[in-house]
Amino acid sequence: MMRVRRLVNIVATAGSLLFASSVVAPAAHGEDGYDLWLRHAPLQGEARARLLDLEPTAYASQDDVTTRLAIAELMEGIARLQGAHPIRGEPGDLPGAQAEADFVFDCRDRTIGNEGAYAIRSEGEGISIRAGEPVGCLYASYALLRELGLGADPSAIDLQSAPAMPLRLLNHWDNPDGHVERGYAGRSIFDWWHLPERLDQRMIDYARANASVGINGAVVNNVNARAFMLEPRYIEKLARLADAWRPYGIRVYLSARFSAPTEIDGLATADPLDPEVRAWWQAKADEIYAAIPDFGGFLVKANSEGQPGPQDYGRTHADGANMLAEAIGERGTVIWRAFVYSAQDETDRAKQAYDEFVPLDGAFADNVIVQVKNGPVDFQPREPFHPMFGAMPNTRLMLEVQITKEYLGFASHLAFLAPMWREVLEADTGRGGSVAEIVSPAGMAGVANTGSDRNWSGSDFDQANWYAFGRLAWDPSLSSETIAREWLAQTFDREGAFLAEAAPMMLGSKETVARYMTPLGLAHLMATGHHYGPAPWVCDLARSEWNPCYYHRADSEGIGFDRTATGSNALEQYAPAMAQDWSDPATMDERYLLWFHHLDWNYRTQSGRALWDELVHRYNQGVAEVDAMARTWEGLSGYVDEERHRAVAESLRIQQREAAWWRDASIAYWQSLNGLRLPSGTRAPSHDLDYYRSLSFPEAPGQ
Amino acid sequence: MMRVRRLVNIVATAGSLLFASSVVAPAAHGEDGYDLWLRHAPLQGEARARLLDLEPTAYASQDDVTTRLAIAELMEGIARLQGAHPIRGEPGDLPGAQAEADFVFDCRDRTIGNEGAYAIRSEGEGISIRAGEPVGCLYASYALLRELGLGADPSAIDLQSAPAMPLRLLNHWDNPDGHVERGYAGRSIFDWWHLPERLDQRMIDYARANASVGINGAVVNNVNARAFMLEPRYIEKLARLADAWRPYGIRVYLSARFSAPTEIDGLATADPLDPEVRAWWQAKADEIYAAIPDFGGFLVKANSEGQPGPQDYGRTHADGANMLAEAIGERGTVIWRAFVYSAQDETDRAKQAYDEFVPLDGAFADNVIVQVKNGPVDFQPREPFHPMFGAMPNTRLMLEVQITKEYLGFASHLAFLAPMWREVLEADTGRGGSVAEIVSPAGMAGVANTGSDRNWSGSDFDQANWYAFGRLAWDPSLSSETIAREWLAQTFDREGAFLAEAAPMMLGSKETVARYMTPLGLAHLMATGHHYGPAPWVCDLARSEWNPCYYHRADSEGIGFDRTATGSNALEQYAPAMAQDWSDPATMDERYLLWFHHLDWNYRTQSGRALWDELVHRYNQGVAEVDAMARTWEGLSGYVDEERHRAVAESLRIQQREAAWWRDASIAYWQSLNGLRLPSGTRAPSHDLDYYRSLSFPEAPGQ
Repeated sequence: MMRVRRLVNIVATAGSLLFASSVVAPAAHGEDGYDLWLRHAPLQGEARARLLDLEPTAYASQDDVTTRLAIAELMEGIARLQGAHPIRGEPGDLPGAQAEADFVFDCRDRTIGNEGAYAIRSEGEGISIRAGEPVGCLYASYALLRELGLGADPSAIDLQSAPAMPLRLLNHWDNPDGHVERGYAGRSIFDWWHLPERLDQRMIDYARANASVGINGAVVNNVNARAFMLEPRYIEKLARLADAWRPYGIRVYLSARFSAPTEIDGLATADPLDPEVRAWWQAKADEIYAAIPDFGGFLVKANSEGQPGPQDYGRTHADGANMLAEAIGERGTVIWRAFVYSAQDETDRAKQAYDEFVPLDGAFADNVIVQVKNGPVDFQPREPFHPMFGAMPNTRLMLEVQITKEYLGFASHLAFLAPMWREVLEADTGRGGSVAEIVSPAGMAGVANTGSDRNWSGSDFDQANWYAFGRLAWDPSLSSETIAREWLAQTFDREGAFLAEAAPMMLGSKETVARYMTPLGLAHLMATGHHYGPAPWVCDLARSEWNPCYYHRADSEGIGFDRTATGSNALEQYAPAMAQDWSDPATMDERYLLWFHHLDWNYRTQSGRALWDELVHRYNQGVAEVDAMARTWEGLSGYVDEERHRAVAESLRIQQREAAWWRDASIAYWQSLNGLRLPSGTRAPSHDLDYYRSLSFPEAPGQ
Repeated sequence: MMRVRRLVNIVATAGSLLFASSVVAPAAHGEDGYDLWLRHAPLQGEARARLLDLEPTAYASQDDVTTRLAIAELMEGIARLQGAHPIRGEPGDLPGAQAEADFVFDCRDRTIGNEGAYAIRSEGEGISIRAGEPVGCLYASYALLRELGLGADPSAIDLQSAPAMPLRLLNHWDNPDGHVERGYAGRSIFDWWHLPERLDQRMIDYARANASVGINGAVVNNVNARAFMLEPRYIEKLARLADAWRPYGIRVYLSARFSAPTEIDGLATADPLDPEVRAWWQAKADEIYAAIPDFGGFLVKANSEGQPGPQDYGRTHADGANMLAEAIGERGTVIWRAFVYSAQDETDRAKQAYDEFVPLDGAFADNVIVQVKNGPVDFQPREPFHPMFGAMPNTRLMLEVQITKEYLGFASHLAFLAPMWREVLEADTGRGGSVAEIVSPAGMAGVANTGSDRNWSGSDFDQANWYAFGRLAWDPSLSSETIAREWLAQTFDREGAFLAEAAPMMLGSKETVARYMTPLGLAHLMATGHHYGPAPWVCDLARSEWNPCYYHRADSEGIGFDRTATGSNALEQYAPAMAQDWSDPATMDERYLLWFHHLDWNYRTQSGRALWDELVHRYNQGVAEVDAMARTWEGLSGYVDEERHRAVAESLRIQQREAAWWRDASIAYWQSLNGLRLPSGTRAPSHDLDYYRSLSFPEAPGQ
C-alpha cells in the first residue's frame, strides 16, 4: 500500500560504484491519506487467523441498492482485513444461498428500530446482521469492520446500536465558485461547474466516508449563500448529487438566501408575511421536491453578519423560519441559525443570541430546528457552553460545532476536537439535562473541514475530527479516548505501543492549542479577517465586537471580561447552579477564568501564582507541549508509512514555530500594557512588539 | 490497479434473494489519473516475454542523486512493465557489479552532448545508457521505459536524442493564495502557505512528471505577479521547492513584478535607470542566488494589461529587461513577455506587439529572451503565427503557448493541442526559417494546466496537452500522431484497435472546437471576463479591443477583420511570401479567411457555397464531430477502466451540449444582423437570441 518511488536497492561501494538489485516497489499509490479510516489494512497474527475462518459470502432476504452496498462494503472490507488481494468476480450460480453464507443480512427487521439502528451477532459459524432499514445494515457493515479491524473475535460479536439523534449533518461553507470559507484543505470538493453531467468519483467516496461514521446529511453550500443556487440550473446539479448519495443514506440540504425571491425573480420584497413571497417559496420547494423527493431542507443564516432576513421587514426569526417551514411542509426541515449579533446592540456579544431567540421559544413551527453554536461567541478554543441550551424547552435545538479549525491553527496545528465537543455534550445545563440530551430530538451539525487536498482535510490528523464528529453525533457518550484509538488504529496502526503514545498526544492537543493561543479563558485574540495568528493589539475596527480588545479588556491594571453581575451579567443567562460555579474565581474551573472575570494582573490564582505569572506559565506550557508532541511523533516513525509520517512531522514543525509566535507576540503585548517583568527563568519574546504587529499575510487561506 | 468499490459478486435470484460470493476488489486506489502517463502497466504476450529476459539490475560508474534517480525510475518501471509486484529491497552485497548488471549507466560521457542528450543501446545481454550529464541519464530512463512500454524489442534498442532547445518551461499563472488564473483543474498545486516546512508529495510527483517529458524549468507564479513573492519569506519557500526539484533537473523561475522595489522597500521609483533601483534588484538577485544557486531567472509581464513596467518612467522594454539582466548576470535568464497592447493605440491589436518590439531588435542583453505568444492576439482556437517570429534576428525569441484551455472549452472540451502547436512550429516565417528554428536558441514556454484535481489537469485528456508540450519542446519535429499514440498507449491502453479509434479522435479535436466556436478564422467571440461560452454580441466594453465586435466586425453586409492593405494591413508585418499566401481569399487557406478579410455574407467560398452557408456548414460540422467523438468514446469502454471512462464520457456530454450552444447562439446573433435564412435542412437555434444573451455564469472558473 505504500508509495515507494525510490525503491531501488542501491548500494554504493568503493567510490563511484552503484548497483541496483532486485527491484521492488509496492503498488502505484502511496498512503496519501485518501482512504481515510477505511483502509482495512490486513490483520496480523491471531486476529488474522480467526478472521480467516470466515468466508466472505453473504445472503440477504431482500434486494435493494443500499443492502447491496452494505454487503459489498462488508465483503470487500473482510477480504482486505484477511489480507486478500481481491479481484473482481463475475456473477455466477449460487449453490447454497442462506445455508452456506457466513454473513446473513436482514435489513427489514422492524424489531430493531428505525433509520440506522442495527444488531450484529455471531451465530453458528457466521454472523447475522439485522436492521430495521437497509441503511441500518450499511451502518452495521461499517461497525462490524471497525470491530474486526480492531481485533474483535468474530465468533463473539454482539453489537447493538442506534443513533442518538436524527440529524447528523455536515455543513459545508463552500461557495459555488469553489472557494471554501474557513476552508484549509484546498478547494471545495463540490464540482458544481461540471454537474449535472459530470459526477466526480470523489462524491461517491465522500458519501461512503460519511456513511461509515453515521453522518446522514450534508448542507452543500455556505450559510453566506448565493441566491442563484436555488435556480433550476442548480437544482439539476443538486439532483445528481442526491441520486449519488441516496444509497449511502445521505440527504442533501441547501443553505437558502432569504432574499432569493427578490434576486432570482425580481419580487419587490422578501417579507415573509407577503403572500407573493410565500407563494414563491412554496413553488420553489415544490420544484426542488419534484427533482429530489428526499431533499432534506433549508439551512438559513438570517440577519447575521450582513445576511438578509425577516428583520429587514420588521418580522421575527420565527416569522421567517415558519414561512419556509410551511413551504417545505412535512417533506423536510428548516434549520435556522441562532448565530446572530447586532451592529447596533452594544451589550455583551455573548448575550445577544439568547436575548433574541429565547423570547421566541414555542413560536417556531414543528419542522423548524434552531441551530446553536457550542459556545455563545464563535468557536473559540475555549468557551462555556451556549446558554440557549436548556433555555428553550419548547423549541428543537441543534448543536453546531466547527470541524474546520478557523480558530485552532487551521490545518497545520494538531488539535483533536473530540474532547472539546464531549465537554459541551456532557455539560449539565441545569435546565432539562445535558446538552446532549437537549439536542437529541434534533441533532448535531459540524462545519466541514473537507477540501480538494488529497487527504481531504488538509492534514492527516484533521481527518480525526471529521471522524469524531460523526461518531459523537451517533453516540455522544463515546469517550474521546475510544474515538482517538479507533481512529488511530484504522488510520495508521493497531499496535498497542503505537496507540499508547499517539492517543494521549491527540487527547491533550486541543487544550494545548488553547494554552498557547488563549489561556485562562481568553478568547478571540486572532488577527483580523483571516484569524491567522495573534493580534491582541487590534482595538480600532469599526464594530467594537470585532476587536480583540473588546474581548480581553486588558490595561495596565488587569485583564478579562467581567460577565458577572458587576459587568455584562452574561452569567444570568445560565441556570443558577451553573452561574454559581462560574461566579467565584477562587473556586471555578480556571480554564474559564478570564471569560467571566476581569482581574488584576497580580490576582492570586489557584496555583498560588499571580495572574500574570500564571498566564505566562500557561503560554510556556502550551509551547512545551507542542515540542513534546513533535518528539513523540518522531519516535513513532516505525509505525507510519514514510509519506504520511513526513507530512505530520512537517506540520508539527509549523505548529512549533507558530505556538512560539503566539506566546511571544501575546506576552510582548501584555507587557506593553502592564509593564511587568517575566517570571524568572522565562525566555523573553524573540522579537519586539513592533515586529509582531508588522507581520502581514495577505494570502492567508480561508477568508 | 482499478478501483472497484462495488466489487462483490452479487447475484439476485428468485425475487429478493441476494448472494455475495468470492470477494474481490483490486488494490485500494483506482485509475483516477494521478499517475498520468507514468503508469507502466504490465506488458502482455510476446513483449512481456521479451522483457522478462532482462533483470532489473543496474550499474553506474558514478554516484550522484540524479543518477540514482535515473536508475530507480528505470528499475521500478521495468519491474512494473514486467508485471512484478515489487517490494522494497534492503541494500545488500553486490557480487558481480558491472559484469552482472543488465543496465549499465555512464552519465558523464562528454561525447554524448550537453544537458539532456543521451544514447541508449542494446549491448550484449543488456542495455547501455550514456549521457553527458546525469539528467541525460534520467531522460534516458524515461525514454527507454516509453519505448519498452510501447512494445520495443529490448534486444534491438538504439535511441539517441538531444533537446532541440535549452529552455522547456512551464509557466504557472498561479497566485500565492492558491487561485489559478485561467486554471480549470482546481486550486494551485503549490502549497505556498505551508512551505518551507511542509513539502507536499505532489511537488515531487510534479517534478517527476515534468522530467519524464523533458521539461526543465517552471515559473512558479502568475505573470500578473504579487511583489511579496520576492520577499525573504517567499525566497525561503522557493528554496525548498528548488531543493526538491533539483534532482529532476527542474529549475525554478519567478515572475517578478516590475514595481517591487517601491512596494517591498518603499523606493520612490522603479525607474530601471535609477541607481537605487538597479542596486535593489542587484541585491535581490544576490539574495535569491544565495538561497538557490541554480535559480533560473525572472519572467516579466510589463506595461501590459495594467502591469507596471519601464514605460511608466519613459523607458523602453529593453531598458527594463537589461536592468534585470545585469542584476542576474550569467547566473540566469530574464524572460520578457511581448504580449502587450495599449489602451491608447487604436490600430489593430494584432499589430501592436510587433510595432513595440521589432524596433528594439538588438537592444536586449545577451541573457534576455523575449517571449512571444504563438499568435498575434491571444491563444485563440485559430490564429496565424506571430509576425515577430523572424522579424528580430538579433534577439532570442521564445515561443509561448497555452496548455490550459482558456479559449478552448476549459477542461471539459476535448481538444488535443499538439496539432495547433505543430502548425506554429513548422510555419515557415520566410525570414530565417521555421518558427521552431527561430526559437531553438531559446525555448518554449507553456502556460500550465495543472491544478489540485486528482487527475492534475481537470480531465484525463488534458493531461495529453501537458505531455505534448514537453515532447514538442524537446523535439518539435515529432508528429502529432506519434505523440497522441504514445500518450494514449501509456495512459490508457496499448491495443492497436484502441489506438486506431482514439488517436484520430484526438488529432481532429482542436479543429473541431475551432469549428463550433470560431470557424473560418473568426476569433475572440467568447464571453467577457471568464471567456466561457459565446458572446459575439458584446460591443460596448470600455476598451474597443475587449469587444467581440471589434474582432468579427459583422453587420448586415458582411463579416471579418480586414487586415489587408485596404484595412489594418497587419499582413505587411509578415514576410512577403506569407503575406501573399494570405492576401487572396480565393486561394488562401480558408481557416484564416475572416482573420484577414472582411467579406460579404454572400461571398462565394472555395466550396462554392456562399459565406453565410459555409459558416453555418462549419458550425454544423463542429457539432456533428463532437457527437461522433462521444460515440467513438462510448465504443472504447472495453479498453479503459470504469472510473476514467465515465469521467471522459461525462465530459463529452458537456462538450456536446456546449458545442450546440456555441453554434446556436452564434447563428442566432449573425441572423439578427444579416436577416438571412438558414440553409435548407439546417436546424434552427434551440432558443432565441435573447435567451443566449441572458445567460450568466457568475461562478465561472479561472477568472
